[in-house]
Amino acid sequence: MTDDCNVLVPLDVPESAKATYIDNYLLVTQGSGNLMLFAGDQKVEHMNNDFYGEGIAEDDADPEHLFRIAQESRIGVFATQLGLITRYAMDYPDVPYLVKMNSKTHLVKTAQKDPYSPQLFTVRQVVDLRNSTGLDIAGIGYTIYLGSEKESRMLREAAQLISEAHANGLLTVLWIYPRGTAVGDEKDPHLIAGATGVAATLGSDFVKVNAPKKDGESSAEILKEVTLAAGRTKVVCAGGSSVSAEAFLTQLYDQLHTGGCAGNATGRNIHQKPLGEAMRMCNAISALTIDGASVEDALAIYLGTEE
Amino acid sequence: MTDDCNVLVPLDVPESAKATYIDNYLLVTQGSGNLMLFAGDQKVEHMNNDFYGEGIAEDDADPEHLFRIAQESRIGVFATQLGLITRYAMDYPDVPYLVKMNSKTHLVKTAQKDPYSPQLFTVRQVVDLRNSTGLDIAGIGYTIYLGSEKESRMLREAAQLISEAHANGLLTVLWIYPRGTAVGDEKDPHLIAGATGVAATLGSDFVKVNAPKKDGESSAEILKEVTLAAGRTKVVCAGGSSVSAEAFLTQLYDQLHTGGCAGNATGRNIHQKPLGEAMRMCNAISALTIDGASVEDALAIYLGTEE
Amino acid sequence: MTDDCNVLVPLDVPESAKATYIDNYLLVTQGSGNLMLFAGDQKVEHMNNDFYGEGIAEDDADPEHLFRIAQESRIGVFATQLGLITRYAMDYPDVPYLVKMNSKTHLVKTAQKDPYSPQLFTVRQVVDLRNSTGLDIAGIGYTIYLGSEKESRMLREAAQLISEAHANGLLTVLWIYPRGTAVGDEKDPHLIAGATGVAATLGSDFVKVNAPKKDGESSAEILKEVTLAAGRTKVVCAGGSSVSAEAFLTQLYDQLHTGGCAGNATGRNIHQKPLGEAMRMCNAISALTIDGASVEDALAIYLGTEE
Amino acid sequence: MTDDCNVLVPLDVPESAKATYIDNYLLVTQGSGNLMLFAGDQKVEHMNNDFYGEGIAEDDADPEHLFRIAQESRIGVFATQLGLITRYAMDYPDVPYLVKMNSKTHLVKTAQKDPYSPQLFTVRQVVDLRNSTGLDIAGIGYTIYLGSEKESRMLREAAQLISEAHANGLLTVLWIYPRGTAVGDEKDPHLIAGATGVAATLGSDFVKVNAPKKDGESSAEILKEVTLAAGRTKVVCAGGSSVSAEAFLTQLYDQLHTGGCAGNATGRNIHQKPLGEAMRMCNAISALTIDGASVEDALAIYLGTEE
Amino acid sequence: MTDDCNVLVPLDVPESAKATYIDNYLLVTQGSGNLMLFAGDQKVEHMNNDFYGEGIAEDDADPEHLFRIAQESRIGVFATQLGLITRYAMDYPDVPYLVKMNSKTHLVKTAQKDPYSPQLFTVRQVVDLRNSTGLDIAGIGYTIYLGSEKESRMLREAAQLISEAHANGLLTVLWIYPRGTAVGDEKDPHLIAGATGVAATLGSDFVKVNAPKKDGESSAEILKEVTLAAGRTKVVCAGGSSVSAEAFLTQLYDQLHTGGCAGNATGRNIHQKPLGEAMRMCNAISALTIDGASVEDALAIYLGTEE
Repeated sequence: MTDDCNVLVPLDVPESAKATYIDNYLLVTQGSGNLMLFAGDQKVEHMNNDFYGEGIAEDDADPEHLFRIAQESRIGVFATQLGLITRYAMDYPDVPYLVKMNSKTHLVKTAQKDPYSPQLFTVRQVVDLRNSTGLDIAGIGYTIYLGSEKESRMLREAAQLISEAHANGLLTVLWIYPRGTAVGDEKDPHLIAGATGVAATLGSDFVKVNAPKKDGESSAEILKEVTLAAGRTKVVCAGGSSVSAEAFLTQLYDQLHTGGCAGNATGRNIHQKPLGEAMRMCNAISALTIDGASVEDALAIYLGTEE
Repeated sequence: MTDDCNVLVPLDVPESAKATYIDNYLLVTQGSGNLMLFAGDQKVEHMNNDFYGEGIAEDDADPEHLFRIAQESRIGVFATQLGLITRYAMDYPDVPYLVKMNSKTHLVKTAQKDPYSPQLFTVRQVVDLRNSTGLDIAGIGYTIYLGSEKESRMLREAAQLISEAHANGLLTVLWIYPRGTAVGDEKDPHLIAGATGVAATLGSDFVKVNAPKKDGESSAEILKEVTLAAGRTKVVCAGGSSVSAEAFLTQLYDQLHTGGCAGNATGRNIHQKPLGEAMRMCNAISALTIDGASVEDALAIYLGTEE
Repeated sequence: MTDDCNVLVPLDVPESAKATYIDNYLLVTQGSGNLMLFAGDQKVEHMNNDFYGEGIAEDDADPEHLFRIAQESRIGVFATQLGLITRYAMDYPDVPYLVKMNSKTHLVKTAQKDPYSPQLFTVRQVVDLRNSTGLDIAGIGYTIYLGSEKESRMLREAAQLISEAHANGLLTVLWIYPRGTAVGDEKDPHLIAGATGVAATLGSDFVKVNAPKKDGESSAEILKEVTLAAGRTKVVCAGGSSVSAEAFLTQLYDQLHTGGCAGNATGRNIHQKPLGEAMRMCNAISALTIDGASVEDALAIYLGTEE
Repeated sequence: MTDDCNVLVPLDVPESAKATYIDNYLLVTQGSGNLMLFAGDQKVEHMNNDFYGEGIAEDDADPEHLFRIAQESRIGVFATQLGLITRYAMDYPDVPYLVKMNSKTHLVKTAQKDPYSPQLFTVRQVVDLRNSTGLDIAGIGYTIYLGSEKESRMLREAAQLISEAHANGLLTVLWIYPRGTAVGDEKDPHLIAGATGVAATLGSDFVKVNAPKKDGESSAEILKEVTLAAGRTKVVCAGGSSVSAEAFLTQLYDQLHTGGCAGNATGRNIHQKPLGEAMRMCNAISALTIDGASVEDALAIYLGTEE
Repeated sequence: MTDDCNVLVPLDVPESAKATYIDNYLLVTQGSGNLMLFAGDQKVEHMNNDFYGEGIAEDDADPEHLFRIAQESRIGVFATQLGLITRYAMDYPDVPYLVKMNSKTHLVKTAQKDPYSPQLFTVRQVVDLRNSTGLDIAGIGYTIYLGSEKESRMLREAAQLISEAHANGLLTVLWIYPRGTAVGDEKDPHLIAGATGVAATLGSDFVKVNAPKKDGESSAEILKEVTLAAGRTKVVCAGGSSVSAEAFLTQLYDQLHTGGCAGNATGRNIHQKPLGEAMRMCNAISALTIDGASVEDALAIYLGTEE
């Protein structure tokens, strides 16, 4: 079922882009098959809320903080918008990048209007940037709000983006969140399993979802339905808002080892920390995700107490 | 009225694509003129509801179950989304595929907003995949919700898809369901006859509808208006939710022999069963549809009691 | 004011398409300048209501009935959707065809939403079919609902279609019906005169309208304003629902001789009859329209009592 | 500030189209810099109301009346839709034409829905017609309803049309009317001054507005703000509904000599008269606009009493 | 982090356009890195309100006033719509221009409908004008109303415009204003910091925002969050409505020296003054912005009392 180096190359990757696809896959998974995605795309979604204020390190007020972390830590890939890449990547040339293709602010709430996050850039523009700069732009990301009245636009844009990305050897990550007037419980495991199934029908390489929750059930256990429904599309869970390092790392360990996840996508739990601590958190997560480290070992990396 | 091999080649199939069209037609009907369509496109429409839960075999939780059935049973064509094909077909190269071109989730109900199912992929992308892989991609499918306030978009997309599909020698199947605020009884036979008539005006090769229902009338009898109205477009009925095998096969027999149907489109009645049973059900349906077998013979195949 | 053979060739017909335009014009008017249009496009607009049920001949349940009539009777042109042409015209190669380019069902009523009938096919597709098959595809038709909130889309599509049709030597017929929340009396003569004036500004060759009605006024008399407002665009009236043959033929005679019409567009009054009677009705209408026959003579043709 | 012959050629007219632009400018202003626009585009906007009924000459019921006036009188340019030009201009080859590019009917009122008038034709189609026929098609016109909820579409279409027209040496006239739920007093001079300022930002050569009105103020005096705000874009006022000839000519004289207008745009005050009278009215208006005649002299021309 | 001449060239500027980009950057900042933008784009946004009436110099009623100021004063760049440039720039060839790409009137208020300002021109048209005329067209501007229900269209248009502008060596300035039903306090500093962060993700060179306000806080102090969030995208504050010269210059000084701004964008505080005074105001602002002058020195320039 897999091609060279144990990478499954989807059939919409043409022969000419196959080597690029495999290189990108090996790069962002560091050969492990698991993805450590550092999410730095919240400046639109959450505006300045995630970067400035009570409990957030001062470092985070400057967008360059994200690039410093990405360059100086061990990560799989750094996801952010194209505009930031064009203004910083000349100074951070060794970071593996994933371009987030759509974004919206949080200003208009679902109660006012169902969400639609518009595609901002084309795959052509991403590929041109990759080719003219030689940067390691390894993939693209796109958010779908399933259950929104605007779902149809996002499904169509996602399908087209995946097709074009694969045609150019780029990986794809879908962020899928059930959201809209029609959606009751956004964290319902059965619903999230439906969401990863949708990602599979669209042919995405990875899908990022919020970890499901259900009263009286272990979060990692109920992930099994979710990762099973995704088939050969790999599932990573969003890190969510900042929690204690131990809780965070334990939850991720369970997602990987019990829930069937193939990585993680973490933003605020990293970048809201000062640079040094953020770097150690990245390294701890990467140890868990890529090396299969234990929670104890990862925690030691985060605390700087490893040998 | 028909060309080589008794296949009616529509006039929008150009000379250069005629042989491909005939090959595809003979492939999916196994030379019988009747279509056994294995429907595996519900992961968007019904999300994980059809694949996981009470009364559904555990096998069905993994999308690969669909491919296993398609490869190891006798079917006419396996209908599913492009994304799944790109990730599994390298391991299931002998399956005849039909690409479902549009999909929506069931999250937004008609009471909230009239349905629109967006075209996700282009015929060009389907043809490129066919040509680069050599897979037996024989046709495309598209759903129209007649009576929806968004009907106009779907009629237009369907008309264009049929024209482009035929230009490339691909067959077309329209799924047509009357649905929307304006629609009272979705199973009304006169309404469904109107729906198949619409398929005829759009020039589709096949049209899949729900079996009509009317109090006090035989379902197969009232199908006659429906299949007559379709003219040279062939009608297949959707299998619907899981029922007993005997009831299912009897109903299909009557649709074929009394109602004037030219095949069937079955999903849940197949894939919600464990692999072995699902395969036998496929074979039973194919015997009915393609070979003209009796209900008894088909049932024996399903039960594994045939000689 | 007219070119060869007394045909007025509009200036948006380029030199290269002029001969084709003239041929088409002479074909569909049989050299008379008057148009006998056999309307067979109701399978979308009225779904199966016009083809099956009380008072409708059984022949009409099968769409091929339309083609049989068109081939075996004397008509100017047979208007229907492209899809039906692609599946039947190989067996009815001598019929002059006019492709109806847009269609909608009647399911969503004006009270729910103002009507829009979407363009389904492109002129390019029509021309390709004409060129590859050699069929006598002489023109295109398009419906505009003036006064609908969606009027702007239909005006634009109509204008573009006329321009492209003429560029390829095809004739154009606009169906224009005032309809929408804003429209009080759809049959008001002054309003219908406005409608034919709109057809003139769009440059259509023919415009089909419903016959105007006004209490206490002769229908043919009030047509004068309507046909005058159309200028050099010729007016034909829709046949409407089935009425007695004599009433129908008398009304048509008056439309031609008093109202200033240049033909007729008849559907239900023809195809709801059994084949033989439908053929005689076509011939009767053609005698009136093309030969300038009297009502008596036309009625004799319909009754089969002419000498 | 002006090029050859005192014509200001806007910078978006390329070198290759400059001579054409200047020719067109001199043609429609008869070298005077002032524009006498004969408006014959109301068959869509007002349907048959302007052409048939009490107080309207019988001649006006036939659209050819407009062409007869345009050919046999002294006018600057005759504005009408493309479709009418394609069917009449072969017999009226010497008329200078301006193609009205968008139109809507008056059926849907502002109280029901804010107005949008759709672009019907492309500049490419206008230029093709000009080139293939050699007709004097000198420019295009477009209507914007400022303050409509659909304003954005019209601003965009207008901007693009002006750019494309200039690229082909065609002149542009914007019809700008403040209209919509948000608009209180459509004739407010300050608002209309805003409208002509918008025309200037869009780069139009001319802008046609309704004459402003304000209680207790002279209409020509309050025009000054309007014409000043337009800068180098020239302002012409719409003629409006039919009034007495003397009142009409006096008002126009004041618009030109006090208000700063550079011409007029007159429809109903011309074409609702019988041919002879309509021609004399055109000539009277042209004398005022182009020759700088007095009201007395113009009135004498209209009455046929000049020496 | 910067290229030749200390100009940061974003990575979406291709090699072939790099020299043009740097030239444009040095031109509009006069080598200082700070931008003095003279805003003359309000004829659409505010119609004639900003140009005519109580307290506004008579000079301002004529759009040429803007060009006179731009040519005869010291400015960084003059921002206005393309149409005005095409009609005046032949007489004002030495002005550095920035083309405002979208505009809307203020007629429809947010309470009626959330704002959308449509893109009127394409970068292609701007570049063609630059190339054919040799004018110093150095950049483009675009307004986004964040928090509007139409936000998605503006984000997409902005992203595409920035990409195309950079591809042609043009600079970009985003005007970003939080506005819409969902927006409570448009001047909230945290919200405006979010807005400049969005500009950074879109890759704009400059972003123009309204100066934030918060009870009991210094306006310049709270700007720090705003300019920090913008990262390498430079922030300029809008001048707003006319205030006293001293207040205005003091505020600007604080924005530059305390708030972290890299310039200003001023319209009404300049053009509502008579030509001479307007010119001195431009020069005063430029001294502050470009030369780092003190408020006293700038005020002396404005008052004409400098030595």
